Amino acid sequence: MKIRPLADRVVIKMLEAEEKTASGIVLPGAAKEKPQMAEVLEVGPGGIVDGKEIVMELKVGDKVLFQKYAGTEVKIDGQEYTILRQSEILAVVE
Amino acid sequence: MKIRPLADRVVIKMLEAEEKTASGIVLPGAAKEKPQMAEVLEVGPGGIVDGKEIVMELKVGDKVLFQKYAGTEVKIDGQEYTILRQSEILAVVE
Amino acid sequence: MKIRPLADRVVIKMLEAEEKTASGIVLPGAAKEKPQMAEVLEVGPGGIVDGKEIVMELKVGDKVLFQKYAGTEVKIDGQEYTILRQSEILAVVE
Amino acid sequence: MKIRPLADRVVIKMLEAEEKTASGIVLPGAAKEKPQMAEVLEVGPGGIVDGKEIVMELKVGDKVLFQKYAGTEVKIDGQEYTILRQSEILAVVE
Amino acid sequence: MKIRPLADRVVIKMLEAEEKTASGIVLPGAAKEKPQMAEVLEVGPGGIVDGKEIVMELKVGDKVLFQKYAGTEVKIDGQEYTILRQSEILAVVE
Amino acid sequence: MKIRPLADRVVIKMLEAEEKTASGIVLPGAAKEKPQMAEVLEVGPGGIVDGKEIVMELKVGDKVLFQKYAGTEVKIDGQEYTILRQSEILAVVE
Amino acid sequence: MKIRPLADRVVIKMLEAEEKTASGIVLPGAAKEKPQMAEVLEVGPGGIVDGKEIVMELKVGDKVLFQKYAGTEVKIDGQEYTILRQSEILAVVE
Repeated sequence: MKIRPLADRVVIKMLEAEEKTASGIVLPGAAKEKPQMAEVLEVGPGGIVDGKEIVMELKVGDKVLFQKYAGTEVKIDGQEYTILRQSEILAVVE
Repeated sequence: MKIRPLADRVVIKMLEAEEKTASGIVLPGAAKEKPQMAEVLEVGPGGIVDGKEIVMELKVGDKVLFQKYAGTEVKIDGQEYTILRQSEILAVVE
Repeated sequence: MKIRPLADRVVIKMLEAEEKTASGIVLPGAAKEKPQMAEVLEVGPGGIVDGKEIVMELKVGDKVLFQKYAGTEVKIDGQEYTILRQSEILAVVE
Repeated sequence: MKIRPLADRVVIKMLEAEEKTASGIVLPGAAKEKPQMAEVLEVGPGGIVDGKEIVMELKVGDKVLFQKYAGTEVKIDGQEYTILRQSEILAVVE
Repeated sequence: MKIRPLADRVVIKMLEAEEKTASGIVLPGAAKEKPQMAEVLEVGPGGIVDGKEIVMELKVGDKVLFQKYAGTEVKIDGQEYTILRQSEILAVVE
Repeated sequence: MKIRPLADRVVIKMLEAEEKTASGIVLPGAAKEKPQMAEVLEVGPGGIVDGKEIVMELKVGDKVLFQKYAGTEVKIDGQEYTILRQSEILAVVE
Repeated sequence: MKIRPLADRVVIKMLEAEEKTASGIVLPGAAKEKPQMAEVLEVGPGGIVDGKEIVMELKVGDKVLFQKYAGTEVKIDGQEYTILRQSEILAVVE
């Protein structure tokens, strides 16, 4: 099964496990968003998105930093992925 | 009876049952939106939406991932559908 | 008496009675908006609305689905109508 | 004394008395906005408003429906008026 | 000392005293904004403001209605003025 | 050490001491923003800011009124400055 | 390992230690954002960002002032960096 992201979205797979707090409670004051490293698995076609031309700069295999909680997690065949917009990717790590 | 969505909207039918929490209480901190898989039943005509040209990329029969709680649920002849904008569809699953 | 909606607004009349909860209390977490079926009674002229050209796609007599709570209810001669923008209409039912 | 509204604003005078709740307390959950009928007394010149060309469609003497609480109430010589933007007028009643 | 407002701002001086509630407490539910009458003392040059051409319609000496709490109060040489944008002026009273 | 503001920002130095309430508690209901007088120390280059051409009207030495709490305070070599956008300056005092 | 920021983002490294309050509690009323001085380590390519042409004015080695809490902190090889947009940089210190 293949996920084909629409518009300016990319599918990524996290490379680092998400930190799990013991209690599971998210304290708003402490909820400093930390980016995570991930690998790009699929890249959308770009094009006109919300009336603006978007050129996709990312390519499959890129290691990227993104904001935690950005995008949407999806589970396909027991595997977890995140789908988010290219603009939510902060940087490529080389 | 046929639903003809307007503008850049599509009508979808969920393929997976919605998870129901035992208590029915939605905890804001835990309300991590999960996408769901659905099948596209009807596709709007696209065109100029909010002053921007929208080309419909989706077609009837597409299996799609979308953000839970996106769009509006409608019940026609005892059957539940969701009407949402194409931009709220994250990806096509092939 | 005739209601002539301005700009991209339409006047509709609900075809289904609004569900009334026993207690009358609206619980925010449970307030899942449900669309309702209605009939279009009057259609505004469209034209330039907020700087964008709007073409009216709806016509008098259309059965439509719209988001509950969208628009404004008005009472004229003891009869209740809803005035809302065309963009708040989700679909036409045929 | 004459009120000359600026830009796309109109001056209206309510034709129906505003409902007054016994306690005078406004309950947010119950504050379903109801439109009111009013007569147009003065019409602004329109023109470029917030970078967009606005043509005034209303004329003095029009009976209009507008959203309750829209605009600003003003009291001149003991008489109450409401000044609001043309876009806040829902419909003309004929 | 002379105040020269920038962009599309005007300097006004209230003609009516601000109502002072006995307790001095502002109740949000009751805080129905009332416009006040004021005299225009200084008019900014207009021009391109936030990317849009603004032509100043107001002139020194105009009596105007504006929304209470709009703009910023300034005290110069013991005298109170209000500096606000032309778009916050509702009407000219003649 | 010299602070060179970017884009449409200016560096100012307050001419009046900030009022300090005895308790140090800021009461939201009472927090009526008061502008302060300041002197312009540095002026950014202007240019295209957020897609719009900004021409800098202010010059070093101008005495200006600005909204209290606007911009960001910085401390360089024990001296406090405020960096804010030109659009947050209300008026020049001459 | 090298961080290559996307679009109009820059990677900076703080030059001053972040103030740590004894209790670790952030009091909203007192949370006056203070800028910090940092050094620019990497500069993104700029270009069309959100439909607007962005020219990068910053260069590697610049000492900059930015708003505390702006951007996203990342930890690579035990070293902390912040990735933020050029527009969140207030000034260059020379």
